[in-house]
Amino acid sequence: MRNVVVGQSGGPTAVINSSVAGVYVGAKEQGAVHVYGMVHGIEGFLQGKIVDLDKYLADPMGIELLKRTPSAFLGSCRYKMPKPEGHEDVYEKIFQVMEENDIDTLFYAGGNDSMDTVKMLSDYAKEHGKKQTFMGVPKTIDNDLPITDHCPGYGSAAKYIATTLKEIIRDNESFGAEKPTICVTEIMGRDAGWLTAAAALAKGDDCTGVDAIYLPERVFDVDKFLDKVDHLAKTKRSVVIAVSEGLKLADGRYACELGDASDKVDAFGHKQLSGTASALCKLIGERTGCKTRPIEFSTMQRAATHVASLTDINEAFTAGKMAAEAAADGETGEMVIFKRVNTEKEPYRIEFSRFDIHQIANGVKNVPDEMINAEGDNVTEAYVKYARPLIEGELYPIWVNGTPRHLVMKELFEF
Amino acid sequence: MRNVVVGQSGGPTAVINSSVAGVYVGAKEQGAVHVYGMVHGIEGFLQGKIVDLDKYLADPMGIELLKRTPSAFLGSCRYKMPKPEGHEDVYEKIFQVMEENDIDTLFYAGGNDSMDTVKMLSDYAKEHGKKQTFMGVPKTIDNDLPITDHCPGYGSAAKYIATTLKEIIRDNESFGAEKPTICVTEIMGRDAGWLTAAAALAKGDDCTGVDAIYLPERVFDVDKFLDKVDHLAKTKRSVVIAVSEGLKLADGRYACELGDASDKVDAFGHKQLSGTASALCKLIGERTGCKTRPIEFSTMQRAATHVASLTDINEAFTAGKMAAEAAADGETGEMVIFKRVNTEKEPYRIEFSRFDIHQIANGVKNVPDEMINAEGDNVTEAYVKYARPLIEGELYPIWVNGTPRHLVMKELFEF
Repeated sequence: MRNVVVGQSGGPTAVINSSVAGVYVGAKEQGAVHVYGMVHGIEGFLQGKIVDLDKYLADPMGIELLKRTPSAFLGSCRYKMPKPEGHEDVYEKIFQVMEENDIDTLFYAGGNDSMDTVKMLSDYAKEHGKKQTFMGVPKTIDNDLPITDHCPGYGSAAKYIATTLKEIIRDNESFGAEKPTICVTEIMGRDAGWLTAAAALAKGDDCTGVDAIYLPERVFDVDKFLDKVDHLAKTKRSVVIAVSEGLKLADGRYACELGDASDKVDAFGHKQLSGTASALCKLIGERTGCKTRPIEFSTMQRAATHVASLTDINEAFTAGKMAAEAAADGETGEMVIFKRVNTEKEPYRIEFSRFDIHQIANGVKNVPDEMINAEGDNVTEAYVKYARPLIEGELYPIWVNGTPRHLVMKELFEF
Repeated sequence: MRNVVVGQSGGPTAVINSSVAGVYVGAKEQGAVHVYGMVHGIEGFLQGKIVDLDKYLADPMGIELLKRTPSAFLGSCRYKMPKPEGHEDVYEKIFQVMEENDIDTLFYAGGNDSMDTVKMLSDYAKEHGKKQTFMGVPKTIDNDLPITDHCPGYGSAAKYIATTLKEIIRDNESFGAEKPTICVTEIMGRDAGWLTAAAALAKGDDCTGVDAIYLPERVFDVDKFLDKVDHLAKTKRSVVIAVSEGLKLADGRYACELGDASDKVDAFGHKQLSGTASALCKLIGERTGCKTRPIEFSTMQRAATHVASLTDINEAFTAGKMAAEAAADGETGEMVIFKRVNTEKEPYRIEFSRFDIHQIANGVKNVPDEMINAEGDNVTEAYVKYARPLIEGELYPIWVNGTPRHLVMKELFEF
């Protein structure tokens, strides 16, 4: 192993930087001379934008700060690799930059779309007799990559959601008015409801939890929803509900289109969703006469590294390290995966492995039926058992002058 | 001092429970036999709803948990005391409940409206020859009570805002698109801009901070605002702006009325504000063609005890304790205040004192001119110097199964 490069892609998470730290440490252990970071993912790499990470990470303090830094330290992108046919120049450019810098392996941390990039590059290399290798490192708060038990980034987002919902429930139940305030929290997740399901983790000995949870895995029935909320409003002093931004009605419209709909699309052609909580609150207010409060967890749910899960940080780091070890073994076109191997003695144990990228790229893993209740308005104990271990543990920020210190790469602004 | 009672009123904060802990500890030290909590403030007290706090706080572990519990442990209310004339029955009922329970002193933790309650009750007692005393304990994330240097609750909300904005800035600057995403964060504060000003605390050696801050202390000029944002969009890769929910246009309308306005009012007749960020994002999108993201910090900014300021927690506790000591000295109709007595050796030192409630009740302290820049689109270094010490220090939650453990009073749901 001579030199390697690592990049980050797609929506940031609280722990995607821990994976970069893991790749750096792992590759160095495997004898890499230079570990480069691509600035703004493949999009920047195509323009030759790389940084030798020794500059920031040779000092172990850099590694510690990086683990506590939210978002994509190297910069991210939403660049969609074109199919090779007719776009050979794009592919050749990538291999050219790799060759110019003696880079043997490219590591890419990302979600579904990013794993597609790894797949296309490793396929291209094989088909064109190129020796470079490509490894995927899982990353997504959505937790929707197939094959792997779960994804780095999910546990921390889930911990943020559970912690914040407990605080919101405390706040909402503090008022003793005749009619409760009905609070609707909107959580990310376009197709998969994993993140919204995490609302269930607010429940515990000291908290009755949220009153209902609606996932995009079930068709959203507005009338049934309003009946449920109306019943809650008449029987409870505080009502807090969690809904996915991706809720869809039977006619195929998104629930957010009930309100002031947005028809913007992102670089991948995905519709921009938001406003679901707000639209539903309007309907709830009309039906119940109660005061309502829509809350969107927005960017905070993917960026709140100050309340990240230590389990998640450690797993993200190890995922990066395992990718480096796999590359040293000569593997290519694979993604690191987690297998859960619980035993009587160890109720939560993960084995790290890797899997053919072709069965992962562009796939989606939804919340399975056994984790959703019959009424489709909550999750089951099976989900809580699955998710609880992922939010355990804390790694506190290094606080300087009252705020968490972050590691920031100045090339992000210069390149 | 025989028995005392403490109540919480108005919007909760991250540390209003620390003040209850302080009253409890202080009153016990002063020889109080029973320290009662009123369930849902004066509104519950009028119905005789009180709880002996020994049940929850006699064990010091209860005090520690209470300091780490967000919202109003005793329950809050938004009950507005009527003027005595024609409503003597309301006043007499309060004194009757006090007499029935041998309560000498009533402590009330709250903001402007709650201090008005303390004022009216202490005035009524004096005018009617009653011996009971009444003490105010300051509480408001808005930081707008006059006379006192600052208010318990503010430092923690400011710490949440600064920490979260740093994370949002990291997230927003991770993308290298040609046009920046413009993020507008909406922060609470109807009349005073203290909380929105806290956005300035995100700036540090590792963060360039937010790009503009708009307070309700200045008339909001939409055209000037859009010119500024347009310039930022053309010269920066990431734009993050902080606006107050209370921004008002020259014609007297709230800025949120530019969008999908709400005309709801709360129990005090205050207009419910929200949607300012959303309304401004729509205008920014039309003007710049950039992608926008409105973010409301909503309930989180007042409930995020998991990231509370230790300085704030300690001061809130001491404020409660000082109120108990003042009551033991026979004082009435006063509120505990903070005086800043900085010296060369001690750049931040607070002395606790108390002040006549008549000069505090219903008053509002705005952000002074010297803390706002000439353009009215940011705060000055004078503000940062004032506010930075208030967000220093952390008191970590007691984490159980991945979320912070809270202390919950079951009478909140039974009474």
